[in-house]
Amino acid sequence: MKILGIEHLAIAVKNIDKSSPFWSHILKLQHRVTETVESEGVITDIYDTGQGKVELLESLGKDSPINSFLENRGPGIHHVCFEVDDINAAIKELRDNDIAILSEDAKVGAEGYKIVFIHPKSTGGVLVELAEKP
Amino acid sequence: MKILGIEHLAIAVKNIDKSSPFWSHILKLQHRVTETVESEGVITDIYDTGQGKVELLESLGKDSPINSFLENRGPGIHHVCFEVDDINAAIKELRDNDIAILSEDAKVGAEGYKIVFIHPKSTGGVLVELAEKP
Repeated sequence: MKILGIEHLAIAVKNIDKSSPFWSHILKLQHRVTETVESEGVITDIYDTGQGKVELLESLGKDSPINSFLENRGPGIHHVCFEVDDINAAIKELRDNDIAILSEDAKVGAEGYKIVFIHPKSTGGVLVELAEKP
Repeated sequence: MKILGIEHLAIAVKNIDKSSPFWSHILKLQHRVTETVESEGVITDIYDTGQGKVELLESLGKDSPINSFLENRGPGIHHVCFEVDDINAAIKELRDNDIAILSEDAKVGAEGYKIVFIHPKSTGGVLVELAEKP
């Protein structure tokens, strides 16, 4: 597979309105969009950094994986996403190497990216997302 | 302050030799350098992604902050670093906004960058590093 760079860093927060001032007013990152991603059970507040994005993730409900993360570990970095040139080629390569992925096929994530998540047990403790630009 | 982008994502690992194959052979990130940073108590294995770096951090000894992190939370994402244009201006701005930083002044980190860390209590649970290119 061909990694094109860090696409975004996702941060689990309890409340976007309370958490966003650090990113928008102190670091002065440029707000790009706020989007609800029903399939992932999150509202995400996306910022451009100049090189990669920062995404604040707030849980949409009790069943959201962000909710479990917050209960287990508290707010903090949730995952890192790398952009790939071809998500289906990447998924095939991961399967061929016995890397554990969290869905059978690519799903559609925020901003229409085609995405897949790699289980932390295959990466050394890091939840890694791969994403192909729409 | 002016953020120029995500400079790197740092990942705490127990053992670089055991953790590096995922990043080098599965994701095929390009290895840049392996460096000992005595001041931070770490050995770091640095990879280019095309947009931002990935740094694997292994503890140099019992007193290393990486060691405490591994004991408390296990391996995983340790911090995110953003590049800034002027570290001293950034530190002044952080102080003026009552943001908690972990050193009085900028220190020298891996690859000669001038760095400062922001306490997670000021960011919403994320250890944030700012770095100015040497």
